[in-house]
Amino acid sequence: MEKDNKKITSRDVDFAKWYTDVVRAARLADYTSVKGCITIEPNGYAIWEKMQSILDKKFKELGHVNCQMPLLIPESMLNKEKELVEGFAPEVAWVTEGGSKKLDDKLCIRPTSETLFCDYYHEHVKSYRDLPMLYNQWCNVFRWEKETRPFLRSREFLWQEGHTVHATSEEAEHETNQMMDVYRWFFHDILAIPSINGRKTEKEKFAGAEYTLTNEALMYNGVALQAGTSHYFGQKFSQAYDVKFTNKENKEEYVYQTSWGTTTRMIGGLIMVHSDDYGLVLPPRIAPRQVVIIPIGKSEEVENLVNKFNDELVKSGITSYIDNSEKSPGFKFAEAEVNGIPVRIEVGERDLKEGKIVFARRDTREKIEESKDIDVVSYVKDLLEVIQKDMYERAVKRRDSLTFEAHNMKDMENILNTQPGFIHAMWCGDKECEEKIKEIKGCKSRCILEDAPRIDEKCVCCGKDAKHHVVWGIQY
Amino acid sequence: MEKDNKKITSRDVDFAKWYTDVVRAARLADYTSVKGCITIEPNGYAIWEKMQSILDKKFKELGHVNCQMPLLIPESMLNKEKELVEGFAPEVAWVTEGGSKKLDDKLCIRPTSETLFCDYYHEHVKSYRDLPMLYNQWCNVFRWEKETRPFLRSREFLWQEGHTVHATSEEAEHETNQMMDVYRWFFHDILAIPSINGRKTEKEKFAGAEYTLTNEALMYNGVALQAGTSHYFGQKFSQAYDVKFTNKENKEEYVYQTSWGTTTRMIGGLIMVHSDDYGLVLPPRIAPRQVVIIPIGKSEEVENLVNKFNDELVKSGITSYIDNSEKSPGFKFAEAEVNGIPVRIEVGERDLKEGKIVFARRDTREKIEESKDIDVVSYVKDLLEVIQKDMYERAVKRRDSLTFEAHNMKDMENILNTQPGFIHAMWCGDKECEEKIKEIKGCKSRCILEDAPRIDEKCVCCGKDAKHHVVWGIQY
Repeated sequence: MEKDNKKITSRDVDFAKWYTDVVRAARLADYTSVKGCITIEPNGYAIWEKMQSILDKKFKELGHVNCQMPLLIPESMLNKEKELVEGFAPEVAWVTEGGSKKLDDKLCIRPTSETLFCDYYHEHVKSYRDLPMLYNQWCNVFRWEKETRPFLRSREFLWQEGHTVHATSEEAEHETNQMMDVYRWFFHDILAIPSINGRKTEKEKFAGAEYTLTNEALMYNGVALQAGTSHYFGQKFSQAYDVKFTNKENKEEYVYQTSWGTTTRMIGGLIMVHSDDYGLVLPPRIAPRQVVIIPIGKSEEVENLVNKFNDELVKSGITSYIDNSEKSPGFKFAEAEVNGIPVRIEVGERDLKEGKIVFARRDTREKIEESKDIDVVSYVKDLLEVIQKDMYERAVKRRDSLTFEAHNMKDMENILNTQPGFIHAMWCGDKECEEKIKEIKGCKSRCILEDAPRIDEKCVCCGKDAKHHVVWGIQY
Repeated sequence: MEKDNKKITSRDVDFAKWYTDVVRAARLADYTSVKGCITIEPNGYAIWEKMQSILDKKFKELGHVNCQMPLLIPESMLNKEKELVEGFAPEVAWVTEGGSKKLDDKLCIRPTSETLFCDYYHEHVKSYRDLPMLYNQWCNVFRWEKETRPFLRSREFLWQEGHTVHATSEEAEHETNQMMDVYRWFFHDILAIPSINGRKTEKEKFAGAEYTLTNEALMYNGVALQAGTSHYFGQKFSQAYDVKFTNKENKEEYVYQTSWGTTTRMIGGLIMVHSDDYGLVLPPRIAPRQVVIIPIGKSEEVENLVNKFNDELVKSGITSYIDNSEKSPGFKFAEAEVNGIPVRIEVGERDLKEGKIVFARRDTREKIEESKDIDVVSYVKDLLEVIQKDMYERAVKRRDSLTFEAHNMKDMENILNTQPGFIHAMWCGDKECEEKIKEIKGCKSRCILEDAPRIDEKCVCCGKDAKHHVVWGIQY
């Protein structure tokens, strides 16, 4: 299928349009005839598969196991936890008919699965010997959103949701923190996205949680993306759903719970942090295809070298492929570019006569001439690592250039009206101040930085004594 | 969690009860408070993950790519293909409310995704250059079943569905056959289940298909399980959903389509072909955990040897683990048995004094004494292959012992009333005869064997001229 990257709007001209253009040009996802739902196309799904394989391996190393809970939740079951119902009831889809009959107890498509896991744990947790149970599931969830933006907001999305039960609050809190560290590691080391980690305010935490830890990333345009959360439930759900165990002293006790999740939103984050006006740019560690080799000319020498390079790269564990299609070299270059292949190797007849080949970096669009006798595996390995590191550093620089401090409401307004970003400011802890700040372009608290130094004595909004150092921002 | 395998009913006494007992004892799945839906527990889900990884690798080697289509189908979209609607409408679940509002166009949860793929291909297929498109998705589907049996029949189940579009009927038919070969390979070589492959009759084929190829396996009790189907659609769907392309002669033409799928039912098949009164028995190639090493006694020698064995096995790519839990050795043996770990290595203080260790095969429950200085990797590799081969051969023997020939309706009745199995019999091709045969205990045509020799001149039912050699049987 031929691609056309001439139609990508500049990200500095119209960021929203640029985003959709990149998603379409790289064939990552598309809108469908099913309102609010998208198709994740093979190029996009391959990124999700790579995210899954890396995260899943880490979850399993930490002792987690995968399972699959039902898609539907009976209304009567959902109603047991009041905060959760209030949080989700307005945005669920209801199944009211099945097998040609009207149902007595209607069923909602899971917006999240706390209730279902609690129902399971209620049946299967008996003794402290059963604990901890460290379950995770990869699945689809559904929330009745009003607008649709591929990967960022859609009625159906894919995610993983970990749900664990523990004998003590210490263990459960340790799990909550540990999984936030895993997400942080994944963002920094794999996605090359610097993120801020902290605690959500009471207003912004998950419905039903004691507290929520969050991983907040900043996009190229200064808008924040919440891209991974880890919740500590204490005994709130176990009391509502009666999940009890017999402890070592032979006494009944409610379990302590956590849940934590990341979604296909991360693909949206990848695009908005790294990509450019030429299409998708992917950090090598998450790119499903890391290297493309493009032959120019049909000589035997070209063909042999292309095959040799590819064989060696594939054998070494690098995902490399040869573009042998009928298109022109220029077209293939553009296609590799729009698809975000980190490294392109051009093997041309004319260059070979001078003993040369060309490496092209997708991130900087730099072309590098090297000898055709180069040790391709070690060269490419190094180059991929350099790209990964450079991409991370550029993302840090961009984030830092969009990070501000506000000492009063005038600062807040000035920043938000000029160039949004992460805004550090002190807060008294009152919901009213959060609501007042929200009046400026919908700016919300991203998270409380628990160990950050105080940058003021007073709340940025009301001027009363400040309790917390908070990062604020406009969000997706 | 402690297990109790004393409660497994004998499979020769009550097969249905035995099946549920094994599913529960090995903690593969459980019923839930959501009617008709099951939880796939970690031990069961690990089998599904292994099935996925092996099949997915094969699909990709053959050029397929994964994607994700929406969960819901608008009624108006479903209605475009008449046969499909008639086939599925009675058994779908309808979403009629979303975001607190009643919907104009209600949405069904996908019972299968032909319509959604067609909607996608309608938008994205333009030219012969775009073809073939070889898409697959791993997802959940929903059908409003009346009874629930874990893995065999439940309202929600997991599956993969391949949907491909081609420029010619030859190519599409080749794909249909190729994928049936993949399923056949998977059943024989990986699951150690001998299956019969053939074509479904008009009555039993997929709603909307030109024809359906099927993979039919026979369970220990003589009941058949349809465990993988591959459909050729010709242009039926492309005409209904207007999926056209411009061919090389620059003329518009409808594409040729296929679909093919396998489900979590395969886990039920695995259980019903191989397991016994002691619990689950798994062929080594599909077992998520292939070897368990159980230390008996706490001497340093035991510990060192156990660790050495495990390290060597894991390094060689065998999935091995040490059971270091606080339970008694006897309890650990029983647990490994009920969970179907193919090979158990017992390393005991007393045995070591005599220079011995013990290998136990799960399939035969045989114990083999070997020297403690054995090359554990090559020994276990060979043993796993022997077990795989023996399990397949036992399954073939069992199937053959339950394979019959019928030459008239009396034969049919006698067989079905004594011991069901695969019944070979000739058929005239009339639906009426199929319906008459179905009156005997619900016996249905499993498939037409296209190249099998004629075993009679006349139809087993009406005595008219026979057209097809058909395998019949009672099904799950």
